Amino acid sequence: MADLIARLRSGLPAAAVITDPDITTSYAHDMASFSDAGTPAVVVLPRTTEQVQHVLRTATELRVPVVPQGARTGLSGAANASEGCVVLSLTKMDRILEIDPVDRIAVVEPGVVNAVLSRAVAEQGLYYPPDPSSWEMCTIGGNIGTGAGGLCCVKYGVTAEYVLGLEVVLADGRLLTTGRRTAKGVAGYDLTRLFVGSEGTLGVVVKAVLALRPAPPQQLALVAEFPSAAAAGAAVCSIMASGHVPSLLELMDGTTVRAVNAMARMGLPETTEALLLAAFDSPDPTAELTALGELCLAAGATEVVPAQDAAESELLLQARRLALTALEKVSTATMIDDVCVPRSRLGDMLEGVAAVAAKYDLTIGVCAHAGDGNTHPVVCFDAHDPDESRRARESFDEIMALGLALGGTITGEHGVGLLKKEWLARELGPTGIELQRQVKAVFDPLGLLNPGKLF
Amino acid sequence: MADLIARLRSGLPAAAVITDPDITTSYAHDMASFSDAGTPAVVVLPRTTEQVQHVLRTATELRVPVVPQGARTGLSGAANASEGCVVLSLTKMDRILEIDPVDRIAVVEPGVVNAVLSRAVAEQGLYYPPDPSSWEMCTIGGNIGTGAGGLCCVKYGVTAEYVLGLEVVLADGRLLTTGRRTAKGVAGYDLTRLFVGSEGTLGVVVKAVLALRPAPPQQLALVAEFPSAAAAGAAVCSIMASGHVPSLLELMDGTTVRAVNAMARMGLPETTEALLLAAFDSPDPTAELTALGELCLAAGATEVVPAQDAAESELLLQARRLALTALEKVSTATMIDDVCVPRSRLGDMLEGVAAVAAKYDLTIGVCAHAGDGNTHPVVCFDAHDPDESRRARESFDEIMALGLALGGTITGEHGVGLLKKEWLARELGPTGIELQRQVKAVFDPLGLLNPGKLF
Ligand SMILES: Cc1cc2nc3c(=O)[nH]c(=O)nc-3n(C[C@H](O)[C@H](O)[C@H](O)COP(=O)(O)OP(=O)(O)OC[C@H]3O[C@@H](n4cnc5c(N)ncnc54)[C@H](O)[C@@H]3O)c2cc1C
Ligand SMILES: Cc1cc2nc3c(=O)[nH]c(=O)nc-3n(C[C@H](O)[C@H](O)[C@H](O)COP(=O)(O)OP(=O)(O)OC[C@H]3O[C@@H](n4cnc5c(N)ncnc54)[C@H](O)[C@@H]3O)c2cc1C
Repeated sequence: MADLIARLRSGLPAAAVITDPDITTSYAHDMASFSDAGTPAVVVLPRTTEQVQHVLRTATELRVPVVPQGARTGLSGAANASEGCVVLSLTKMDRILEIDPVDRIAVVEPGVVNAVLSRAVAEQGLYYPPDPSSWEMCTIGGNIGTGAGGLCCVKYGVTAEYVLGLEVVLADGRLLTTGRRTAKGVAGYDLTRLFVGSEGTLGVVVKAVLALRPAPPQQLALVAEFPSAAAAGAAVCSIMASGHVPSLLELMDGTTVRAVNAMARMGLPETTEALLLAAFDSPDPTAELTALGELCLAAGATEVVPAQDAAESELLLQARRLALTALEKVSTATMIDDVCVPRSRLGDMLEGVAAVAAKYDLTIGVCAHAGDGNTHPVVCFDAHDPDESRRARESFDEIMALGLALGGTITGEHGVGLLKKEWLARELGPTGIELQRQVKAVFDPLGLLNPGKLF
Repeated sequence: MADLIARLRSGLPAAAVITDPDITTSYAHDMASFSDAGTPAVVVLPRTTEQVQHVLRTATELRVPVVPQGARTGLSGAANASEGCVVLSLTKMDRILEIDPVDRIAVVEPGVVNAVLSRAVAEQGLYYPPDPSSWEMCTIGGNIGTGAGGLCCVKYGVTAEYVLGLEVVLADGRLLTTGRRTAKGVAGYDLTRLFVGSEGTLGVVVKAVLALRPAPPQQLALVAEFPSAAAAGAAVCSIMASGHVPSLLELMDGTTVRAVNAMARMGLPETTEALLLAAFDSPDPTAELTALGELCLAAGATEVVPAQDAAESELLLQARRLALTALEKVSTATMIDDVCVPRSRLGDMLEGVAAVAAKYDLTIGVCAHAGDGNTHPVVCFDAHDPDESRRARESFDEIMALGLALGGTITGEHGVGLLKKEWLARELGPTGIELQRQVKAVFDPLGLLNPGKLF
């Protein structure tokens, strides 16, 4: 351990190696409060690729595990420290290296905060779509690590669609370049996409080439109130079947709406069972919103309220972005599911979650990227009550079982981490898991990178 | 060999096992005429996943190489037979299993022809974007094998963006399911995308879940004439920098235009140095086409001619789709490059290719997916003339060197196959190649699947 620290210091500035336990323990956890975490031996905060290489070479020589971290806003424990590990925080590598409006790319270091990048490219009339609700905190490196989604993904796709090329430091310290700066490319296996969503288990991203789009027009939103979550689900189906391409299609159930009101006094309708938020960013969104509103009414909406302008639309988004945080205040602890089902099964999923909540006598609020079928049932429970905690864990699992039974996946965007390890094995089956493990061994034969995550 | 045939026959219908050399040799080659091919021992045409499993189990037991094939329209030799191999043609597995307008997916077998799928989904108001110019012949399995692009990719992206999940028979006959039916999903490493573009070297695709979009409005095109390819390249830069999102942005140089006229009497302007085709499929494309036309004029276009209607627009696309075929008629043989550069370097690329043509005293026609920076310099030469053949090969290589020097990739969409093996190593470097080989070994430890391709 003394040796580890000394060796790390030999290739890093003094301030980049932190051993003060008061500080290092604050790096132990991401935001999946329910997952275990070990105590890091040391936290390092490199500023250059060479420094990252030094850290990984040292760790390999001494056989010490390394846990890469962005902003630790993750919701699956994927960034949690393992006992005695080196926490490798990329937050100081936060430079935007290039923004190019002709090639429509940005080249960034991994520690750049999502919203910082979004604003920087917006200044040049460009757009980096993936927008997790945590965008003011989370980093591009973390977004790549988890394959993050967000609100606009129903139209624009997720992080994987926007990563063109990477520079990655491998477990043994070698630097690997994958992918390209070009719009297209098929030279060899797509290792770039293999890294996206790999949760820090295959290598450490130190640079990324990201695809950008021209900025779309400001979107205009509406909100529709439904007497049941199932009716809102039916509306989503008819909207998608009708060929609409909304830039936003989000759902908050009644529990979520009331939680958001309680936290932020947003003035959302207190008595509703489900709100659907929809928006278009087409040149003339009003006609499309009108048509969509009619589909909502036909599916049973009791009220459809179009936003008056862009500012009011943005306020609705704000409400939706607060959903997870607001639900966290309902009780002392939460477990956040991330089941994604074929959108045709959204109504079944929402009804099923309600049945699970009733069965276990728990509050489970649901917000969802409804257009993608990606639900976030948030199990609220009192962590000091052992029986309630047990019921919470069981209901959390039952929701994943339900998602798989409906043809879905256990995780649409938050990842597997520690929280869903057993479930990954159930989703992928023995052949799938075996191949995943073998792929891991190619990149990290000693198993030092973020050990114990995924499988 | 007799043993191989007998064992194959034990699990396949008689008609599915072909040994007649007149027929089997016709399966030896894809359309990269310059690449070597061996003589297949046998051609099998399975109709079910179980039959494919039987073929691969047999091949593994007997250590016989297997070459998966679609329609053999490939342009890199990736589907060429190796000596004594089993050619595994997937063309009889050609059922469309499902088209779902709510989930916006299609589930297909690999032998479905691209245009057949496109028309089937169009009947339901849906759209499968990837549209290689060979779409009337090539298969979805081959498109997945190569990661195919096409004309509409400048707006809608390439095959990789549309493959959600796969069923793959591994070299040892096991069946692997990857990915999902849902819009999003991050459960484990993205093996789906690893298979896309893997050129039949990792496994045999027997089923694919594809993402669909709602059908866009019929596109409207214009054609702009330029006095030089460089001026057309400059126009592409200013179009993209201005935030336009054309649904088509293609280039044909003078040589290509004249070749297309010679073959199909399209009446394209004979004396031009470069034509740019652009289109929009927005609700009202006329205003956008006008703005784009002005940018072309500012970049030096001598004439800008908007199509009168959708039919005339489709005619322009037809002309572009004929480009490769027309250039093949210029001489007795062609080698087709597929260099993709950052689109800001398109002009440099086009000028560089012209210099290469002059240096080697060869005709090199260029057509390009210009909006993506993806050029197809077609080296035309007389295969009966050894010196000209040598110059052709050297110029072909020099064009790839130029592409890499401009920050590009050796292949935007046609793949590596046999034709660009040395170049893949140059593009990826030793670390990249080593990891690619190790990934291959995970899926195919005996090296039986399409051996000798890629690296
Ligand atoms: C209020 C709230 C709302 C959220 N909303 C969304 C949402 O809408 N959509 C969504 O997808 N997620 C959402 N999340 C989850 C979370 O923000 C995302 O998973 C995000 O991508 C994590 O980024 P991070 O920088 O915090 O990464 P971390 O949590 O620090 O790390 C995440 C994973 O990436 C790895 N990693 C980090 N950096 C690197 C690197 N440079 N190289 C290799 N691996 C690395 C880590 O090891 C870990 O496995 C939300 C979270 C909160 C708290
Ligand atoms: C006139 C012409 C125009 C073209 N235009 C374009 C274009 O615009 N864009 C473009 O990208 N390409 C283009 N191509 C190239 C070619 O059509 C594409 O590469 C196409 O994807 C090949 O499909 P195929 O069915 O012919 O596959 P094949 O050529 O038979 O095989 C291609 C590769 O895929 C593998 N493969 C095939 N089926 C499977 C399977 N089921 N499982 C695993 N591996 C499999 C093969 O082993 C091989 O490596 C063009 C070709 C021609 C002749």
